[in-house]
Amino acid sequence: MDYQKFFKPIERELQLVEAELLNTLDTELPLLQESSRHLIKAGGKRLRPAFVLLAGRVFTDRVNELIHMAVALELVHLASLVHDDVIDSSLLRRGKDTVKAKFGNQISIYAGNYILARALMKVAEYNRADVVDIIADTSIRVCEGEIVQLQTCFDVNQTLKDYLDRIERKTALLMAVSCHLGALLIGASPPHIKALKNFGHYLGMSFQITDDILDFIADEETLGKPTGSDIRQGIITLPALYALRKEGEYSEELRKILSSSDDIERYADRAMEIVRNSGGIEFSERMAQQYVKRAHKMLRLLPVCQSSAALGQIADFVYAREF
Amino acid sequence: MDYQKFFKPIERELQLVEAELLNTLDTELPLLQESSRHLIKAGGKRLRPAFVLLAGRVFTDRVNELIHMAVALELVHLASLVHDDVIDSSLLRRGKDTVKAKFGNQISIYAGNYILARALMKVAEYNRADVVDIIADTSIRVCEGEIVQLQTCFDVNQTLKDYLDRIERKTALLMAVSCHLGALLIGASPPHIKALKNFGHYLGMSFQITDDILDFIADEETLGKPTGSDIRQGIITLPALYALRKEGEYSEELRKILSSSDDIERYADRAMEIVRNSGGIEFSERMAQQYVKRAHKMLRLLPVCQSSAALGQIADFVYAREF
Repeated sequence: MDYQKFFKPIERELQLVEAELLNTLDTELPLLQESSRHLIKAGGKRLRPAFVLLAGRVFTDRVNELIHMAVALELVHLASLVHDDVIDSSLLRRGKDTVKAKFGNQISIYAGNYILARALMKVAEYNRADVVDIIADTSIRVCEGEIVQLQTCFDVNQTLKDYLDRIERKTALLMAVSCHLGALLIGASPPHIKALKNFGHYLGMSFQITDDILDFIADEETLGKPTGSDIRQGIITLPALYALRKEGEYSEELRKILSSSDDIERYADRAMEIVRNSGGIEFSERMAQQYVKRAHKMLRLLPVCQSSAALGQIADFVYAREF
Repeated sequence: MDYQKFFKPIERELQLVEAELLNTLDTELPLLQESSRHLIKAGGKRLRPAFVLLAGRVFTDRVNELIHMAVALELVHLASLVHDDVIDSSLLRRGKDTVKAKFGNQISIYAGNYILARALMKVAEYNRADVVDIIADTSIRVCEGEIVQLQTCFDVNQTLKDYLDRIERKTALLMAVSCHLGALLIGASPPHIKALKNFGHYLGMSFQITDDILDFIADEETLGKPTGSDIRQGIITLPALYALRKEGEYSEELRKILSSSDDIERYADRAMEIVRNSGGIEFSERMAQQYVKRAHKMLRLLPVCQSSAALGQIADFVYAREF
């Protein structure tokens, strides 16, 4: 796991986060414990905890007080994944059974709620209303994004702005909040907090676009889930959106396939092929690159140090599709 | 609606709660707004808001500051109902379509999450970590209760203690918290806060036992959902538990039906008949009455006033199955 070298400045704290993630979900009910810990045990890059800690580490060597928040934000993220897998009926994530696959829909819904409640308990420890407010607002906007994603399935007329709004709420927001809260809780200055928040936002946009590209070009082993799962669910991402808008003989065929769940089931491979040949992948790569550039620009507003350098390297790594 | 006379001391505030419930769920996404407001529009007795407000009203005439909390706790309650209806595949609640029936499982899961996030935002306004902590702890224990309920379905060997633990987490806890927070936020003394918290707990226990009795004896119109829905889902409540334990020729037959989902589907009416003839209803009534008595005992620790009297009348009303 090559990316872990960027986590060097916060290595010790990330180990504490890992242990605390499991501890936090402690309950005397074996089924609840096993189901809620299942996804944690499946691993994960812990990017959100890393952002919280690195953002704080830019300003001080002692970021122990950020560990609760790092744990809380990873739990918020995991809770949403558990529910998403119920919604999408996904059976594989990170190459392992989803909570839904192993425990069924009922347990998964409650396990997701439980993980979220435990996250809230962690947040409460800071005794800060502004922080609770940020978390609540984030949850609201993430829910809105999820509803929009359901609503725009099979909608071949959605705009680029629709897509960007959606991935902002789906991914960029929580990454922005991770950087934001790391800096805020450590007592950074308002301009520094803002720069880190924006960094997280741009990185998150780039991250999701890259993820959406991978769904077209990676193999199942790399993804840890079937290739083309977005398109099969009717989720139209940037590469497909580009292909739909491109003048040419295949855009009409693609439009027909993507607007019908029956057709997608039958012709998903053909749709993937049209998208791959349209230049949509390259267009998306350029957009991801633009966001990474903006992320770097934000880092230049911060003190030069090992941690801000690490954040920059993570951004490059995201763009290089190494995550 | 006769019970509303007990709400007289907080009539004006309850109207504000009603308006605020809808306002709070405001979002620019029509589908999310409609789905999350659906259950609110279906009505409801707003018992939890009433408890928050009456608990505070025991100590002061000005309880405006409790309105946010009253709204928050009703939203926590509604969010759990929205998810429960997905889990139970329930189509009717309060005589109307459930969110699940009208909008499907996917939207319902997100609508529940959204309602909960909005509740959290309301809670954040108090800027009190102890309060956030109580809400988080409540959510955790409610989740645990729901998991236990799933696990104990068709389990004919569960004990009375299992049942009482379950209904505590399912119902009594949030009622206790409503009374607790109303008193806490208004600045009541610790013994008074404790008395109100215990009042809410005992009332909640009585409330749930009564609800479980009604599932055996009320008609569909009164219930707003099909009679016997607990037993049909394999949920073994107090009247059935009594019948299972009673020495006699029918307990073995009942045990056989209740332990198998196939048998329950076929012989639910027979199981209901055995329970009704077992004395289980009368036993449950006595238990509900005991809890109401304990609730009254707590009220005697409070200042004598219109609001504490109203709480007592609500307790009697619950026992008389008028709710």
